[in-house]
Amino acid sequence: MFQLLQTDTVSAARIGRLTLEHGVVETPCFMAVGTQGTVKCMTPHEMRELGAQILLSNTYHLNLRPGVEIIRGAGGLHRFMGWDGPILTDSGGFQVFSLAKLRKLTDDGVHFQSHIDGAACFLGPREVMEIQHALGSDIAMVLDECPHYPCDRETACKAVERSLAWAARCREEAANIGFTGKLFGIVQGSVYEDMRRHCAEQLVATGFDGYAIGGLSVGEPDEELFRIAEMTAPLLPANQPRYVMGLGTPRQIVELVARGVDMFDCALPTRVGRNGTAFTRRGTQSVRVAAWKDDPRPVEEGCACYCCRHYSRAYVRHLFNAGEILGLRLLTWHNLHVYLQLMRDLRAVIAAGSFESFRREFVANYRVNYSEGKET
Amino acid sequence: MFQLLQTDTVSAARIGRLTLEHGVVETPCFMAVGTQGTVKCMTPHEMRELGAQILLSNTYHLNLRPGVEIIRGAGGLHRFMGWDGPILTDSGGFQVFSLAKLRKLTDDGVHFQSHIDGAACFLGPREVMEIQHALGSDIAMVLDECPHYPCDRETACKAVERSLAWAARCREEAANIGFTGKLFGIVQGSVYEDMRRHCAEQLVATGFDGYAIGGLSVGEPDEELFRIAEMTAPLLPANQPRYVMGLGTPRQIVELVARGVDMFDCALPTRVGRNGTAFTRRGTQSVRVAAWKDDPRPVEEGCACYCCRHYSRAYVRHLFNAGEILGLRLLTWHNLHVYLQLMRDLRAVIAAGSFESFRREFVANYRVNYSEGKET
Repeated sequence: MFQLLQTDTVSAARIGRLTLEHGVVETPCFMAVGTQGTVKCMTPHEMRELGAQILLSNTYHLNLRPGVEIIRGAGGLHRFMGWDGPILTDSGGFQVFSLAKLRKLTDDGVHFQSHIDGAACFLGPREVMEIQHALGSDIAMVLDECPHYPCDRETACKAVERSLAWAARCREEAANIGFTGKLFGIVQGSVYEDMRRHCAEQLVATGFDGYAIGGLSVGEPDEELFRIAEMTAPLLPANQPRYVMGLGTPRQIVELVARGVDMFDCALPTRVGRNGTAFTRRGTQSVRVAAWKDDPRPVEEGCACYCCRHYSRAYVRHLFNAGEILGLRLLTWHNLHVYLQLMRDLRAVIAAGSFESFRREFVANYRVNYSEGKET
Repeated sequence: MFQLLQTDTVSAARIGRLTLEHGVVETPCFMAVGTQGTVKCMTPHEMRELGAQILLSNTYHLNLRPGVEIIRGAGGLHRFMGWDGPILTDSGGFQVFSLAKLRKLTDDGVHFQSHIDGAACFLGPREVMEIQHALGSDIAMVLDECPHYPCDRETACKAVERSLAWAARCREEAANIGFTGKLFGIVQGSVYEDMRRHCAEQLVATGFDGYAIGGLSVGEPDEELFRIAEMTAPLLPANQPRYVMGLGTPRQIVELVARGVDMFDCALPTRVGRNGTAFTRRGTQSVRVAAWKDDPRPVEEGCACYCCRHYSRAYVRHLFNAGEILGLRLLTWHNLHVYLQLMRDLRAVIAAGSFESFRREFVANYRVNYSEGKET
């Protein structure tokens, strides 16, 4: 399922190839976020045009709306949303974190109050596997408990033990129901190296198709984030994919690739785009600045995306000022292109053995404005 | 500029060809509304894919935002918005009606308070011609006064005289500034046949490249609308294009084509689409109905549009329920396709001599739910 093609000699960066039921994914890869069965503002055809090889969707959200029976009846999520490439689905574990006020945790699973209408909804290991099976996910995630930051040792420890129990039950359940996709475990343990190690070892002993490093981008500073990734990645099998969930800025992605991470997802490019901010190779840029009012240049000079090939900064700024949906579309398009092009570039420089110089230059030139990028 | 190709033997329906600076437009034609320099939700490339041959934009709105100097600096509206086909611009005359509370009329023109920030803005005959010249409109409209319905004779008469004076001044101004596009006059006169006749005769005496029948779809019942169009169209030169502004439903368009109208614009397909209502050949249909929740069929069976080729009713309904922008896009796309396909069909049946039977069948099958379709 995962072929490790090359590992950088200087850093832990690596390139690989994931072979899934709906297609092949080159890693390091970025998964655009399609929480509700659509990458916001985009069609699946446009995602193909952008070179996306895999999308992410969400068990909790799709289960509430439209409901898993409707998607099952439509022949699965791929057919429902018109995307024939691979899909990874989060289990709802992240909503344990993001919807903390609307849920109650027990050892059996999570009792949610729907964020839409308050209806009761229970997600346990069996439920998340049944739902992801019905969706037809290429990669399913185990149910986990994602604690807040900062997090004391006791809370972190409890979350790890619960997550391990759920992970094992998800694996059993997947076998019971004949789930044919891949199943990834999720390493928790907050900032504690011993817990991360314990969690990783136990998950690897249970055996999964790939491993996520969870519980990141929950408020910790970048140094903590990089430290945790750097300590956790080597605890995971080299010949299996590693996925950092819910991250990040282009700079964070480059730094995490340097630490041996293969897969990313993040709402930043789409969300920030809809808010009128463009990602560029040198950082973020608001389209609303007065200087753009008559600027004939593209959003990012030299960019090959649809937005930059056809429209000026002045026009994109006008669309945002006038509240026009085409503005949201164009900037979403551009930002996703920046992310997907970055992944292509990363794969190329790793293959060429020039990753470290690319990384140094990229990080030196990148101006950070954003640190959050999580879905609810 | 206008070639009348064929007139129906039973009705007044006709087919023709408009040759404009940016391309050829086959009539009867429908102009999608791009008030702020974008057809809401759509790219210009998608409009081409839909077969649109001409778009409409708006002098009042573009003059306020982004401002005419910015569009002039960008090389005109075509380059600014990335549409290389013909553009017709309304003069701002309709905003005399739709923004009645924000304007003061004098014989010199219209003093507006900007609907955006309250700033003072004056549009007289010279201003609207200068702006439309700067925009690079293929077809400019004269400034006119569009009265409300119902409208007493005195008010209607005053609006006609003022509109005639402004039309003549617009024509002079166009010559003075070297405007190279076409200029259309606008017939007012409310429901009064003598005034419509007087207005039409005076405009024709002044001489314009085409003539609009204005002051319709301002609250009058359909019978009045059809009666006014039927009495006014024959007052206009047969060898010049006739344009009914701001209309209508598919059924209204078919009925107006039967009365010899060549050109239409209307915000209905885009606006109603964004509100979750689909146009079909048999009337309108809300996408939110419970019956669609698991309906695998396309929005309109047999429809060849992008939405109907790729997505189910269940998915489109889900997108609207979930507040996803892709829903707005898909239904806008479908509705514009329905309108543009209707115009293609109308041209074909007129050419084939079967317009009357097409009209009878279409009108008999069409269920009317909507009567308003005006832009502000």
